[in-house]
Amino acid sequence: MIELDRTSAVGLADQIAAALMGLIERGELLGGARLPSVRQMAKRLSVSPFTVIAAYDKLVAKNSLVARHGSGYYVAARNQLMELSEIESTQGNPSEAVGFTLQSLDAGHTAIKAGSGFLPQQWLAEVVPPALVSRVARAQFALTLPAPAQGLTGLRRQLAERLQGWGVAAVAGQVVTTLGASHAFDLIVRSVLQPGDTVAVEDPGYLVLLSQLKSHGLRLVAIPRLADGPDLDALEEAARLHKPKLFFTQTLLHNPTGTSTSAARCHKLLLMAERLDFRIVEDDALGDLAADGVTRLAALDELRRVFYVGSFTKLLSPALRVGYVAVPRDCVDKLVEEKILSVLGTPSFTERVVEEVLASGRYQRHTKQVRSQLRRFRQRAHAMLQGAGVEIARPVSEGLFIWGRVPGLEAPDELVKRALGEGILLAKGSMFSPTGSHADFLRFNAAHCCEARLADFLRSALTPRQPAPVARLPRPASQPVSARTS
Amino acid sequence: MIELDRTSAVGLADQIAAALMGLIERGELLGGARLPSVRQMAKRLSVSPFTVIAAYDKLVAKNSLVARHGSGYYVAARNQLMELSEIESTQGNPSEAVGFTLQSLDAGHTAIKAGSGFLPQQWLAEVVPPALVSRVARAQFALTLPAPAQGLTGLRRQLAERLQGWGVAAVAGQVVTTLGASHAFDLIVRSVLQPGDTVAVEDPGYLVLLSQLKSHGLRLVAIPRLADGPDLDALEEAARLHKPKLFFTQTLLHNPTGTSTSAARCHKLLLMAERLDFRIVEDDALGDLAADGVTRLAALDELRRVFYVGSFTKLLSPALRVGYVAVPRDCVDKLVEEKILSVLGTPSFTERVVEEVLASGRYQRHTKQVRSQLRRFRQRAHAMLQGAGVEIARPVSEGLFIWGRVPGLEAPDELVKRALGEGILLAKGSMFSPTGSHADFLRFNAAHCCEARLADFLRSALTPRQPAPVARLPRPASQPVSARTS
Repeated sequence: MIELDRTSAVGLADQIAAALMGLIERGELLGGARLPSVRQMAKRLSVSPFTVIAAYDKLVAKNSLVARHGSGYYVAARNQLMELSEIESTQGNPSEAVGFTLQSLDAGHTAIKAGSGFLPQQWLAEVVPPALVSRVARAQFALTLPAPAQGLTGLRRQLAERLQGWGVAAVAGQVVTTLGASHAFDLIVRSVLQPGDTVAVEDPGYLVLLSQLKSHGLRLVAIPRLADGPDLDALEEAARLHKPKLFFTQTLLHNPTGTSTSAARCHKLLLMAERLDFRIVEDDALGDLAADGVTRLAALDELRRVFYVGSFTKLLSPALRVGYVAVPRDCVDKLVEEKILSVLGTPSFTERVVEEVLASGRYQRHTKQVRSQLRRFRQRAHAMLQGAGVEIARPVSEGLFIWGRVPGLEAPDELVKRALGEGILLAKGSMFSPTGSHADFLRFNAAHCCEARLADFLRSALTPRQPAPVARLPRPASQPVSARTS
Repeated sequence: MIELDRTSAVGLADQIAAALMGLIERGELLGGARLPSVRQMAKRLSVSPFTVIAAYDKLVAKNSLVARHGSGYYVAARNQLMELSEIESTQGNPSEAVGFTLQSLDAGHTAIKAGSGFLPQQWLAEVVPPALVSRVARAQFALTLPAPAQGLTGLRRQLAERLQGWGVAAVAGQVVTTLGASHAFDLIVRSVLQPGDTVAVEDPGYLVLLSQLKSHGLRLVAIPRLADGPDLDALEEAARLHKPKLFFTQTLLHNPTGTSTSAARCHKLLLMAERLDFRIVEDDALGDLAADGVTRLAALDELRRVFYVGSFTKLLSPALRVGYVAVPRDCVDKLVEEKILSVLGTPSFTERVVEEVLASGRYQRHTKQVRSQLRRFRQRAHAMLQGAGVEIARPVSEGLFIWGRVPGLEAPDELVKRALGEGILLAKGSMFSPTGSHADFLRFNAAHCCEARLADFLRSALTPRQPAPVARLPRPASQPVSARTS
């Protein structure tokens, strides 16, 4: 969309800067969008990279672009409000998160689940022993009594104790069980928000959440995720301008980047939420894999502004699907009401099994084992990925996810499709982005990345010396936001 | 709101008729609303019952009112469209369905669950034996593998076979598992309707559904439920005027009236749906208690216009909460998408248990036993209720629910509260009505109605010769629609 007049007296860098400024002002390039890399842009416009750098830097000087170290150039937060209809139109396939979830849940689909969000089944084989399930099944009424609408009382007590262990004076009455974290998000949205309300989300962030928010007709503000948590400057600006009611964030071992928010940033975030009057949904689906003593927002805030979402589907059993949310006291009744209106109640049997697993101490031992095993697998996965030409964008040492960048990756859809043809599930970066950026990223699951066949595939598909069909294929119809400048 | 001029040359009956007509025309009395009984109206206006009858009959002659045998006078269907906001404002406590559900699910709350929708726990004690659960738990991956988003494949095959047993050429691909019938309704609404759309519901009908529809911002048309199914004349008129997209109906052993729709009426209903282009949601939560060979809408229609909702929460296990919906082929993808966006997936473990119970033939034997046991309990319950002054509005011989009318019951909230104080859960009729009518009805659960203490309570509370605090108490602030004429 940028046309250069090479006969003009105006320099090429100035022409490029002016054209980009126009796109930003007309809302065609939205706040939070990542610009094409210098190299890509130079190639597309047939100018030298130095000309592009000069153009970008002019806009940085005007505060219209932000340069993020090691990540690229982004449109500044001023225009960071995104209508989800725009996301849809910029992301080609609006339900690709749904399609990806279908693939991840369908066991037979792929042999190597490099992009999956789940642990390998073998890793979960011992945490819920069949003997424990049998014992629960023999307990009186275990198979005949529904759970109270708020969730099984015994389980909610256990969960309140976990919160108390972090110093939060929570009670079982503040805990509502759910069918996993996604159900918790659905209930929070239904009980707190109206269509048309604005919420802030991380960019990149949890992919199913983005589709959920869209389906509820919400407006999104994208907040860049940095190495030690959300970009608080961007959040402050967005909060002042767009007054989001909720900010969804994953403090620990963030999906998809693997990063954790520092204690200092948690504190600052809560101060900001107080000052600018928004509430926070803390997704803690993977926090049990973090080191002891890490800081959670819920622990600092004590469930005043924070809705704390926990889940046992990833680390205990995806077959049981038990999750929960601990909420401010004045939000409990409405949340339970929405639970009744969406599913009536959750199964008491699965909650009883989780209650027993927690009470036995098995879960705590299990997460310790998974944590140390993941640390070893991560090291090997890092080495393998780097050997195949993937840059590790956030070199963290803990947790499940590795956020890899493939320099020059121009047709991620083709790469994903080709991988699937070979029985390999990959997760492309733009799925995780409300702005459709991060198109040259892939999310890897450290526990699924140690297979030789995966290494072979990535080396062959990504290494420039090899035939590189991905880079040579025509661009697909769907384009991320940042590509619209081409 | 009716003021009479006793000095006027216009007769009192004509004045009453004119005043009612005004209320109907101004939309203050809505279609489907039940008028106060002749006796009540006569008392409020200080006129003779004959004057009220004369007034009502004038409006019946004008087709503005409909007289229903044994039930009273209703505003004709012409104005039957109800905004749910009006229902809310006329029903006092908008979330009373939620409050009632909380009570029903909470085991400790009441000793005698006369108004509950569940079977007694003892009745379910043998259908899911702990040994079967243990066997499932020992199967490979039973505790570690998520179900596909659409639901466990083996269970969906079993469910398709059930449909095939009724002659419906359904396949597993048309079945989506849910967390029970309420979850199925939520998914259907999310996948087919938009806020502001109109749907038709039965009056009376399933109470949680009414609140669900309200929470989605839908407009409701109330269709009276007659002895052999929905009032098709009212439905036809409503469908022509208001073009509902869906009609929610329970063909067999209807909740709360206990009635079943005849095969002829099923056929007519489907013809009408075709002619006037609406689709039907068939709630079959209790159909497995009906006689072999009964007609279901899904069986006649073969899943072209019908969404068929089945559930194992009532008859197999409320602790497992497994339900499902079988839908037209073109609706599957969207429904699965909404399942992902609401809960991501359902637990594979509970679905595997139900799959095993179905495969073993246990469920089929169990429902036969429950059916014959209920028949015996119904007889005793009918006798007890009639002895206590409750009229059996629909004297059917099968199923779980008994729809009882208490002539002259003027303060049902007080009755329910007093019962709860004595550990007895009652379900008042107006909860089940989208128009807030049926205020002098109670829904009884035949399986919970054979306790002497219940009989004692009802006799003492309802029999006129006894001190009758219920009738003497001041009217509560909340009024059903029909009371707004007073």
